[in-house]
Amino acid sequence: MASQKELTVGVIGCGYWGPNLIRNFSSVKGWRVKYICDLNSNRLAQIHEQFPWTQPVTDATVLFDDKELDAVAIATPVSSHCSLALAALEAGKHVLVEKPLAASRADAEQIVLAAERAGRILLVDHTFIYTPAVQKIKQLVEAGELGDLLYFDSVRINLGLFQHDINVIWDLAPHDFSIMDYLFADKPVAAAAHGMCHFGNQEDMAYVTAFFERNIIAHFHVNWLSPVKIRLILIGGSRKMVLYDDMENSEKVKVYDRGVDVVDSLGGIYSLLVQYRMGDMYSPKLDTKEALRSEVEHFRDCILSERQPITDGHMGLRVVELLEAAQHSLESGGSRVPVRDMKTS
Amino acid sequence: MASQKELTVGVIGCGYWGPNLIRNFSSVKGWRVKYICDLNSNRLAQIHEQFPWTQPVTDATVLFDDKELDAVAIATPVSSHCSLALAALEAGKHVLVEKPLAASRADAEQIVLAAERAGRILLVDHTFIYTPAVQKIKQLVEAGELGDLLYFDSVRINLGLFQHDINVIWDLAPHDFSIMDYLFADKPVAAAAHGMCHFGNQEDMAYVTAFFERNIIAHFHVNWLSPVKIRLILIGGSRKMVLYDDMENSEKVKVYDRGVDVVDSLGGIYSLLVQYRMGDMYSPKLDTKEALRSEVEHFRDCILSERQPITDGHMGLRVVELLEAAQHSLESGGSRVPVRDMKTS
Amino acid sequence: MASQKELTVGVIGCGYWGPNLIRNFSSVKGWRVKYICDLNSNRLAQIHEQFPWTQPVTDATVLFDDKELDAVAIATPVSSHCSLALAALEAGKHVLVEKPLAASRADAEQIVLAAERAGRILLVDHTFIYTPAVQKIKQLVEAGELGDLLYFDSVRINLGLFQHDINVIWDLAPHDFSIMDYLFADKPVAAAAHGMCHFGNQEDMAYVTAFFERNIIAHFHVNWLSPVKIRLILIGGSRKMVLYDDMENSEKVKVYDRGVDVVDSLGGIYSLLVQYRMGDMYSPKLDTKEALRSEVEHFRDCILSERQPITDGHMGLRVVELLEAAQHSLESGGSRVPVRDMKTS
Amino acid sequence: MASQKELTVGVIGCGYWGPNLIRNFSSVKGWRVKYICDLNSNRLAQIHEQFPWTQPVTDATVLFDDKELDAVAIATPVSSHCSLALAALEAGKHVLVEKPLAASRADAEQIVLAAERAGRILLVDHTFIYTPAVQKIKQLVEAGELGDLLYFDSVRINLGLFQHDINVIWDLAPHDFSIMDYLFADKPVAAAAHGMCHFGNQEDMAYVTAFFERNIIAHFHVNWLSPVKIRLILIGGSRKMVLYDDMENSEKVKVYDRGVDVVDSLGGIYSLLVQYRMGDMYSPKLDTKEALRSEVEHFRDCILSERQPITDGHMGLRVVELLEAAQHSLESGGSRVPVRDMKTS
Repeated sequence: MASQKELTVGVIGCGYWGPNLIRNFSSVKGWRVKYICDLNSNRLAQIHEQFPWTQPVTDATVLFDDKELDAVAIATPVSSHCSLALAALEAGKHVLVEKPLAASRADAEQIVLAAERAGRILLVDHTFIYTPAVQKIKQLVEAGELGDLLYFDSVRINLGLFQHDINVIWDLAPHDFSIMDYLFADKPVAAAAHGMCHFGNQEDMAYVTAFFERNIIAHFHVNWLSPVKIRLILIGGSRKMVLYDDMENSEKVKVYDRGVDVVDSLGGIYSLLVQYRMGDMYSPKLDTKEALRSEVEHFRDCILSERQPITDGHMGLRVVELLEAAQHSLESGGSRVPVRDMKTS
Repeated sequence: MASQKELTVGVIGCGYWGPNLIRNFSSVKGWRVKYICDLNSNRLAQIHEQFPWTQPVTDATVLFDDKELDAVAIATPVSSHCSLALAALEAGKHVLVEKPLAASRADAEQIVLAAERAGRILLVDHTFIYTPAVQKIKQLVEAGELGDLLYFDSVRINLGLFQHDINVIWDLAPHDFSIMDYLFADKPVAAAAHGMCHFGNQEDMAYVTAFFERNIIAHFHVNWLSPVKIRLILIGGSRKMVLYDDMENSEKVKVYDRGVDVVDSLGGIYSLLVQYRMGDMYSPKLDTKEALRSEVEHFRDCILSERQPITDGHMGLRVVELLEAAQHSLESGGSRVPVRDMKTS
Repeated sequence: MASQKELTVGVIGCGYWGPNLIRNFSSVKGWRVKYICDLNSNRLAQIHEQFPWTQPVTDATVLFDDKELDAVAIATPVSSHCSLALAALEAGKHVLVEKPLAASRADAEQIVLAAERAGRILLVDHTFIYTPAVQKIKQLVEAGELGDLLYFDSVRINLGLFQHDINVIWDLAPHDFSIMDYLFADKPVAAAAHGMCHFGNQEDMAYVTAFFERNIIAHFHVNWLSPVKIRLILIGGSRKMVLYDDMENSEKVKVYDRGVDVVDSLGGIYSLLVQYRMGDMYSPKLDTKEALRSEVEHFRDCILSERQPITDGHMGLRVVELLEAAQHSLESGGSRVPVRDMKTS
Repeated sequence: MASQKELTVGVIGCGYWGPNLIRNFSSVKGWRVKYICDLNSNRLAQIHEQFPWTQPVTDATVLFDDKELDAVAIATPVSSHCSLALAALEAGKHVLVEKPLAASRADAEQIVLAAERAGRILLVDHTFIYTPAVQKIKQLVEAGELGDLLYFDSVRINLGLFQHDINVIWDLAPHDFSIMDYLFADKPVAAAAHGMCHFGNQEDMAYVTAFFERNIIAHFHVNWLSPVKIRLILIGGSRKMVLYDDMENSEKVKVYDRGVDVVDSLGGIYSLLVQYRMGDMYSPKLDTKEALRSEVEHFRDCILSERQPITDGHMGLRVVELLEAAQHSLESGGSRVPVRDMKTS
């Protein structure tokens, strides 16, 4: 089905994110958007005007039944991810799914297993992983420039649109959970979450802490009620530390040669044993390539070379597991909830 | 003892903060620094050179025994606050104590009761309360400009000096706990804390959440391991929201006419019931007066007019209670620990 | 020709800016893009793929000869503006011309006169005038909130693409000249300019000063050699002052209640007669509407209601006059060159 | 007179800056402040309270007549610099003079010659030269890291105190003129200045351009009427560029690996011959030492080792020459005025 020449894709869901997928699949070499699909025919017609070379359908089974179609991209509400992804995989399609992969750990596991069974590529759309900023930080981590990772601290807040079907954790934290998952070899073993529901019936702000076997801690502040937009990630390493400020126009990533030296002091218990170290900062030049474009190219390359995507189903599952643990903690007053690892299930 | 003309004070502890107290007591009208006191005679001599009009003593009992002395300022390590404060109050001195008031709730209560018994002024040096920024926010809160308070979120992080006797919560959080206590009429009923000790034997970073009877949540990130210095407080109100960025040279306080309106929708449960509102921002002009100077003047005025300071022993005690609850939570893996209120004890 | 239902436009020039015009004319109600035109047929084909509903032509006379076509938008290099605009106006088309209106004062005058003769709308694409930021500042000026205008200071610098046909003044200063022209009722009577040509054969950085009959001064720093991108305009008024920072994501416009009071001092000539005043700052909420979209709507409304655009040919001409005066000054070593006003010509 | 053990200094002028000199001379090893001097005996008494170990005098001749006194620091209004400096040098004192060195080129020359005749150290208090930021930039320049210097652009603006005796150029530009003089081996050969006097009788804002023999340009914006405080210097080099933002708490100096490459294109005149280059940025860690303290130590070292200070009389004279040229240009409507170099006089 997949040929070296051109892959075809159908995009299901033409809401907020779908058109971005259509646009990128349309402009990347090697892809052709064959179908666009939405239950709402008015919305479908409106999007079709922008992409007149696609075939609009309201019924997703048209895609699954088209033997020529290579891949399906699912950008529908999270509750429908599982059934659509399973149907697409069963029909032999490669699948790109909007984040989070599914509404529950059980559903996410089903999708991952189905993809493995079908021998098809499953890519979860954790777009941030494909940003030049995160790619650069990954390089720093892998080159050992940060030393041992000590903590991950993320703030993702703004005056956000209130969602009805999901709370602020499920809305915003998948970004940060996936970034941490990508950068940190260690995986969280437990999570605790506190939140507050001021309006409506979903938490509009929350604080999630993730715990590890080793001396690492991670923390996430997600908030729909902030007057200002902050997108700030701090990564502490034993050698260097990174500040990733996504609101900066340039200089999004700053690497600080700052840290702590443990000094072998002979001067008794009152002498300073732990000293901080201040050095230069540098901000690497970043590409300006759109992340979603890189992701769509990566999806193509993975299909053609039968490689696993960097945001594969396992990452998607780990993100859902952490979401679920945080949700359980939230519902139990903030207690520490284990994150079950697939390997141990 | 106290006269309209001039009050005398002795400053105990000439470490990092003591000289700031001496300098401000020296320059404010109505105060005269009679003694400076430190156990370390070398340090004492060094500070005496800067303030040659004071009398240096290594023994604090000289101050307590001087019947003419009106007040004592205690800027020693927290473990010695209780005994020094009690001795000073018993000797009939007015007392200014460095924050936190004491190392435990029990000690703090003792000091508060001793001050009440002695009929002397007890001022806890929560300096931030006297900053023009916090004073301005207090005015906004009291004028109802923010509406109902929804949350308090504070980040106080930098590459800090590691302390040996206290962890990062006891070092940094008293600032934020006191600011919240001053601004919020509601008081926390429970706290939860997570932290990590990467180096040395004290937590070098921690996250504290405070819970209230009503729909309010407060959160505090304190950290000695951040490559950058951030001092940021967000206060969410139902009408307006405040961002207080202490690292800004000017425009430290920004008031956002932004928030959430709950709309009475008739269109069924799927229609948007909660909408955000975006309006102007303004940044009030702030005084440039040094906070510690205002505090020392306030201490003088409270003594002369027999008024309670705005940072009185009760505030100091509430801060210690919250510290202690956070500490207990930290030690019990993050469980929710009640904050015992003095009124109910 | 013009009907209430739909106006048709042909866009000449499909380089950097043309596609933005095509996109906005395509999405604004009341406009239909009938033709797109470029001498380069490869480029034309490439753009046509994005806008397949348009008719691609390499010869602009097709547009002029189409009796049904209402308007022409010219986004070609500045040297061709004059001949194209004249041809379009003679053919009875309404014309939108990229900034600057023309390469010389003489050419610009010809276009303005031709538009008046033809009774057609001539809109110069000074896009910044249609930004929510400039519109808001205009409101402040007109409401008298700034008092008397004292100065206009602009910095527009970055590491820019070197142009071969025009220097940095002709490339960047039209933006600032038009903003000043829009906001200031007073018009400059002379200009002086200093610049430097480090590479290539065009000035890559320049400083332009504009002089007025009254006590107003304006200054413009344009630069292709700056390591950072700065887009900062300061407007001093006798009552308030404005800072317009176009690099800010939000809070682009800040209004400072700061200024100078001349105090009637009786204490002799050495006493302070001039005092500064510090008050609050506020940052008005701005629309997020794309400026070019507003401009294209305005062009439509002006045609339908036979009104003059706010960026009409006279503004376009004044901008060219100031450019020409600055250019003459640059070539004469920075001497003060009069800006001839059309009214006096 | 000068001994290895301790140098004595008398500080003349106890206005705004004098106390900073007294404080630093008092705290630096090797210096003892013997006299403080001011014509205003009330002010003198007030300052003496802070520095009780000094001898207050209202008559500067006491200092000149004291054979034991090594040095004099002059922090009086600029009009008195010449007579005081000449008297001090004639009395054999080493002299530190507040910037600018004198009110005219003629006066400045007299002082420089008098110092050379007397064989005494003359240090002009261009404090910024001693900041860690400027010292770091100097190192970068000398190491060739910036390549050939292309331009110097400075903005020094705020809502400033209006001066009666000097305009904004003489008030603020000496800082930037001295920094440029220190960093750039090339010296300006001419200057042009435009300004405006909105209030009072002195220019409250001005733009100064300096010209060089080679392809270098320098520009200075000084302004007492800005609602915000900006202290920004850009230095363009052919290899790297520097941004020095003195309002930043940390990261005052940023070095950009950005610039322009002239490409030898064979593709005809329309191909791009000049291309920009974007690389990393880094911000070197800076000392936190107070500049005036370094300066006072340097003054001591120069006296003891009979070396010329880095801010010697020749630099002071060059700054005054540029000020005078700018002033003449301002008075002649902005014409280009030669900067006479001492070497050619």
